[in-house]
Amino acid sequence: VTAPDPERVRVRQGAAEGSVWIGSGILAAAERFLVSPSRRLLLFSSAAAEAAVEPLRRALGARVILDRVVDDREAAKTLVTVSRIVDEALQAGLRRDDALVAVGGGVVTDVVGFAAAIALRGVMWNAVPTTTAGMADAAVGGKTGVNHVLGKNLIGSFHPPAAILVDPAALTTLPERDYRAGLVEAFKAAWIADPDLAGPASRRLPALLSRDENELLALIAGAVRIKAEIVSADPRESDRRRLLNFGHTLGHAFEAAGGFELRHGEAVAWGIAAALEVSRRRAGLPAEEADAVRRALIQLGPFPSPRREPEMLASLLARDKKTTAGGLASVLLERIGRARVDETVSAAEWLEAAAIMSLS
Amino acid sequence: VTAPDPERVRVRQGAAEGSVWIGSGILAAAERFLVSPSRRLLLFSSAAAEAAVEPLRRALGARVILDRVVDDREAAKTLVTVSRIVDEALQAGLRRDDALVAVGGGVVTDVVGFAAAIALRGVMWNAVPTTTAGMADAAVGGKTGVNHVLGKNLIGSFHPPAAILVDPAALTTLPERDYRAGLVEAFKAAWIADPDLAGPASRRLPALLSRDENELLALIAGAVRIKAEIVSADPRESDRRRLLNFGHTLGHAFEAAGGFELRHGEAVAWGIAAALEVSRRRAGLPAEEADAVRRALIQLGPFPSPRREPEMLASLLARDKKTTAGGLASVLLERIGRARVDETVSAAEWLEAAAIMSLS
Repeated sequence: VTAPDPERVRVRQGAAEGSVWIGSGILAAAERFLVSPSRRLLLFSSAAAEAAVEPLRRALGARVILDRVVDDREAAKTLVTVSRIVDEALQAGLRRDDALVAVGGGVVTDVVGFAAAIALRGVMWNAVPTTTAGMADAAVGGKTGVNHVLGKNLIGSFHPPAAILVDPAALTTLPERDYRAGLVEAFKAAWIADPDLAGPASRRLPALLSRDENELLALIAGAVRIKAEIVSADPRESDRRRLLNFGHTLGHAFEAAGGFELRHGEAVAWGIAAALEVSRRRAGLPAEEADAVRRALIQLGPFPSPRREPEMLASLLARDKKTTAGGLASVLLERIGRARVDETVSAAEWLEAAAIMSLS
Repeated sequence: VTAPDPERVRVRQGAAEGSVWIGSGILAAAERFLVSPSRRLLLFSSAAAEAAVEPLRRALGARVILDRVVDDREAAKTLVTVSRIVDEALQAGLRRDDALVAVGGGVVTDVVGFAAAIALRGVMWNAVPTTTAGMADAAVGGKTGVNHVLGKNLIGSFHPPAAILVDPAALTTLPERDYRAGLVEAFKAAWIADPDLAGPASRRLPALLSRDENELLALIAGAVRIKAEIVSADPRESDRRRLLNFGHTLGHAFEAAGGFELRHGEAVAWGIAAALEVSRRRAGLPAEEADAVRRALIQLGPFPSPRREPEMLASLLARDKKTTAGGLASVLLERIGRARVDETVSAAEWLEAAAIMSLS
């Protein structure tokens, strides 16, 4: 294996420091990048992640003391699944200085990361995302957890991975729809924080969509740098980190309203479409910049339309709001690359934006 | 209610800072001491803790938005119980700025603390221990968690409570056996770190055993200061914190061997009796100091004898050892008030000590 020359982005969250390694071919050299104090690793992967697991197995050899498949459906993102992973790890003789490796999409990194957070009161873990959404967003930031009948991600832990390996080789079997939906989160990072990332990436969307590795790595690395910078400054989502929720105010509602049939990134795309309307009126976002964002979303799509009955959206917005004491936390775009949190936007304004938003 | 004048001990663990409030009558003034950013509290208590819950309810009034009983048997210390607590809290509309209150013994603080660690990825919690063991040891230090079929406390989290209220009023219905067993942990802290606490407390054991509040508060406060100092310096049990495991090398084995019929403090008492033998030979503990410790343990007892078949103890010691890469971590006493971790003591030496130890 020739030595790849990956980019390294450091993420510091409280006492924990992790590294995101980004480059072609790093899975085949994984022994250099995955972290385990004992050198022993317990591998948990989704069945669909075989393209990523195979080079890992070859690179790691006897360091892998357990190799298991995890159910990666959203319906399996439960405390029961986490409990089963902890069981398997303990049965395999897990020690405090061992580390887990999660290979898969957001569900797998969420449940395996949470298992690592609570097994023996916390062991290290590594993430190998196999989706564009996981690479650009889900794996970075330390949020792990599971769903509850009352809502998504209501149970979990902040437990950042020690290492995240981002290698386009992990995407070879990713369906087109998921590939595109995940890129929405990467663009979202650019739109809230970095016009010099957003502009060129938008212009090179055809190459990105044909899976050009250099274009993809440039966008993902940029999104990871933005997220790493934000979560390092605000690990527990008190203030700055909320900027990452651009498009999520209605995005979460669209996701829930659709019975979770929309991909997360697709729901966020529609949430951004609505946020552009609100940002135009409330944050002075220039028309031509709103159009530039919308054009990029249109190229990333087409996305299935969300349900947008006002009564349903209103009750979903109210539920989201209930988890904190304050008002609805809206993220508005002032310019491409500059966002702010606004707590004065009413639910009615969001419903109006949902009614008029368009991605065509 | 006349204002009590409690002692405050601060515990700093990483970014988290908590306070232990120690004094007579503080439960009746609990609104001053319990912490909740939203001021809302969710109360979880054991059925046996009514003596402590009643004054809390009166002091807190409408701040209590949920009031539930938790199964406090060791057999209920499972992930299922934690899941049920999280369910109840979410059903009650838990927000991120709310806080839980655990009222009870070690099982209740362990499961409620763990529920607080994972609900909404972590909310604040407060502990009101109703046992001497909880006051002197279990509630301080941030360890929360549950048992697994493969062993005790194998699943959990470091999530320190924001406030711990230590009030002798919480002990009124505590059975004599538990009262005495819990004091072993308080003495343990004195023996490893503070001869000026250990000496006077030993001389005043009759008053302590007749539940003299001043004597009890002096000993508990001393033990809490020691534990707070140690865990603040070493929150994740890497080194210094292991000193708190004095008596636990064999204590854990005695506890497991007895099918958990021994109280934790009773098993630790026997573990200390064995550690005195090893400390005499290996750490130069003077005979008269070993005798002073043994005499105090005898007054705190009599404790039911543990099973001590060598084969059984050997396999239990081996299991404990397996959770870390290093050898058996033995805590030895050099003098009363001075302990050290020693990794050169063999299992055979511990088995020999178990064979010759005596508390009569």
